[in-house]
Amino acid sequence: MWASLARCLSRRVTVHPEGPRSLQRAVKVRGFFPLQTWPVPHRCMRMGTAPRMDGATPAIRQVQALDAERYVSVRWEDGSRSLYPYVWLRDNCQCAHCFLHSAKARKLLLADLDVTTRLERVTLTEPTKVSVVWPDQHTSEFDAEWLKKRCFSQSARQKQQEELFLNARHCWGSGLRVPTASFEEVVREDEAAFAWLHTLRRVGIVLLKGAPVEQGQVTRLSKRIGYHRLTFYGHTWQVQDKADANNVAYTSENLSLHSDYPALHNPPGVQFLHCIKQAAEGGESEIVDGFHTANQLRKENPEAFRLLTSLRVDFTDTGADYCDFQVQSKNTIIDVDCDGQVVRINYNNATRDSTLDLPLEQVQPFYSALRAYVDLMSRPENVVTYRMEPGDVVTFDNWRLLHGRRSYTSVPGHARHLEGVYLDWDEVMSRLMGPEDSLKQRGLNQSAQSRALGYSKEDN
Amino acid sequence: MWASLARCLSRRVTVHPEGPRSLQRAVKVRGFFPLQTWPVPHRCMRMGTAPRMDGATPAIRQVQALDAERYVSVRWEDGSRSLYPYVWLRDNCQCAHCFLHSAKARKLLLADLDVTTRLERVTLTEPTKVSVVWPDQHTSEFDAEWLKKRCFSQSARQKQQEELFLNARHCWGSGLRVPTASFEEVVREDEAAFAWLHTLRRVGIVLLKGAPVEQGQVTRLSKRIGYHRLTFYGHTWQVQDKADANNVAYTSENLSLHSDYPALHNPPGVQFLHCIKQAAEGGESEIVDGFHTANQLRKENPEAFRLLTSLRVDFTDTGADYCDFQVQSKNTIIDVDCDGQVVRINYNNATRDSTLDLPLEQVQPFYSALRAYVDLMSRPENVVTYRMEPGDVVTFDNWRLLHGRRSYTSVPGHARHLEGVYLDWDEVMSRLMGPEDSLKQRGLNQSAQSRALGYSKEDN
Repeated sequence: MWASLARCLSRRVTVHPEGPRSLQRAVKVRGFFPLQTWPVPHRCMRMGTAPRMDGATPAIRQVQALDAERYVSVRWEDGSRSLYPYVWLRDNCQCAHCFLHSAKARKLLLADLDVTTRLERVTLTEPTKVSVVWPDQHTSEFDAEWLKKRCFSQSARQKQQEELFLNARHCWGSGLRVPTASFEEVVREDEAAFAWLHTLRRVGIVLLKGAPVEQGQVTRLSKRIGYHRLTFYGHTWQVQDKADANNVAYTSENLSLHSDYPALHNPPGVQFLHCIKQAAEGGESEIVDGFHTANQLRKENPEAFRLLTSLRVDFTDTGADYCDFQVQSKNTIIDVDCDGQVVRINYNNATRDSTLDLPLEQVQPFYSALRAYVDLMSRPENVVTYRMEPGDVVTFDNWRLLHGRRSYTSVPGHARHLEGVYLDWDEVMSRLMGPEDSLKQRGLNQSAQSRALGYSKEDN
Repeated sequence: MWASLARCLSRRVTVHPEGPRSLQRAVKVRGFFPLQTWPVPHRCMRMGTAPRMDGATPAIRQVQALDAERYVSVRWEDGSRSLYPYVWLRDNCQCAHCFLHSAKARKLLLADLDVTTRLERVTLTEPTKVSVVWPDQHTSEFDAEWLKKRCFSQSARQKQQEELFLNARHCWGSGLRVPTASFEEVVREDEAAFAWLHTLRRVGIVLLKGAPVEQGQVTRLSKRIGYHRLTFYGHTWQVQDKADANNVAYTSENLSLHSDYPALHNPPGVQFLHCIKQAAEGGESEIVDGFHTANQLRKENPEAFRLLTSLRVDFTDTGADYCDFQVQSKNTIIDVDCDGQVVRINYNNATRDSTLDLPLEQVQPFYSALRAYVDLMSRPENVVTYRMEPGDVVTFDNWRLLHGRRSYTSVPGHARHLEGVYLDWDEVMSRLMGPEDSLKQRGLNQSAQSRALGYSKEDN
């Protein structure tokens, strides 16, 4: 169902010629861009194309057991060679005794795996089938395509990992024209939905236009994925100017650039915000590419980058909404993975706690580093400003983007109103990556199908 | 409401004299222990008592501006001294202009914070009030108790962090007598609920006894906290022997020691499992303290520990349940924080992917390290075996414990049946830590109150 859409991404497009015109109203409002043509001003460090496997089954010329290293050598038809450790082959035997095919999961226990196993013989039974007989006479059979995909060479692993996680990002500054798509097309058409999520992953933001101007649309959209993430602010939450606001967002004041909910140890990965009513004056949105600006900081001020990626800061959030809450977290402002890649920004000045768990001598350097990052992200060349109109749904990567809102005039009877919802990246990636025609293949009932496709009224 | 329960923990107890007797049936079944008396055989590395603030407001003898270092010095009545950086004091001004009291959140923007600020004068206006006038004549007032709690000395920070996160753990081996409590008391009484969650955090497991033998009890229990975590396996999930099982748990076979859901990047922190029907034969539960065994591995085989805390392993899970899914994660088997403390175990041999993103030469060392850890955790001195009976609800830390199940005989008409639910630690800690009397103070309506206390029928 979904995988076929990958092939359509380059030809299937949704054009909104009216977009850039009708939206260029507020001060410094930037243009919007239909999905297929958004520009790529510059690229992140880990940028790179990751072509999909072309589907042609690779053929094997020869297999050989290298007993000294305990590797099976596979010589491919094109002359290249892959090596597979004995232990890995035994661990991943695909027979029904070792692997539960209905769950696509390993049955073989680690306690039953001889991690220093030898093999009795390896043979090429067909040009695309490798058979291994183990010392206890257990036999494993491996398909050439399955093996090729799991080759241990660096380039093969990089390609496979990029296919699995889509970690390459298109970075941007103020020159970004925000990718746009039709809300209704995304809700109704699989190809449009695939293009939406693919762009959301790569660029970090997609603006959907033309949603009905009433509550419930972010829920429809999250059902398109699977389900949303409930938090202490409720299943969905209403961004309005409220008396006794339990969150700074629920006022009419300026909201400086921030990511949502760093007071949770695992802040929501994705956020949808639906504009139901816009303020008569003010309320423009601002966004910044947090990954791109963090990498700028790394270059310009390595010491500030080092501090913000190593010092853990307390965040806190106390109040009552869905129920009463008092959450407390420790997060670095900039999260990097073990390869040093920036993977998440955790920054909300409102919920940064007065409790600061740093030695006295690190307090001043921390503030200086944070100020350097905030100054850098606020530079005009990094900020995109736009104004949401009723019916717009902005969908964005909350681990990557910092977003802000200018103050607005709160007029009784014409109150600004956005509805928001959170999701996690694992769920969004699951919808984006798989599974092809799985529902049909599994013969699920209609209710489960409609839920998976996002049209069910159940489980609000 | 909840904070007062801290004081009661040591005197409020729930004794189940019948527990150890009625439960000592299966092979090697260990005893159970009422909450107040579970033994502490040995302590984790970061173990330590963390006495709560005693509540008496500390008095200040003298305040002084140290302009060279830009610190305010506070001399306390007992002669000790705390230093507070100017920038931190200015950042945390508690006036209504700088701080939104209804949200308990900072309004002051970082862009408006002079990170190299000086101060004009600091004075002790009362024995418990410090007033600071800044160069622009803005005045900040700080309460002595508030300052004392935020002292930057190492011991004060350690104490405060332990109060906030309860990271000290009581580690255990096979000698553990599983803490028990009454399901109904935990659902109905605040003190019992506090003792339950406190022990769940410290020990990692509490067995609740006497739940009604019908579905819906884990939902009642999660409403006691606030809300549960929905996953691709549904709001709650039924552990039964199923045809075409989409998970190895949904068979009658042996489940080796594992943590749940490492195929998500943020696996569920807490799990509740309610026994509705037990197998006539087999189906005993096994648990291991993953933190304790990881620390054993660090001592016995530092190289294996180094590999398992640094090499990221792919996990995968594909199928259809709540909706169709195809999730993929990269996790280290043992997660440590920046101080080297073990904070999460991610290990499920069934969903460990055949895709292994390691250079060829690291494959064999990885398998040897994993085998070393699995062998170590499976040692008799580390494993606690018990048998759940209908009405038992085991509640445990899924980031810490490894759990397993022995195979069982599946008899038609008497099928073993557990119902499970997931939660995250942030939500559980929120219920455990706060807020004292917040509902009454905030004057929420009855529906919100009942939801917070866990009795609402809404929002299933």
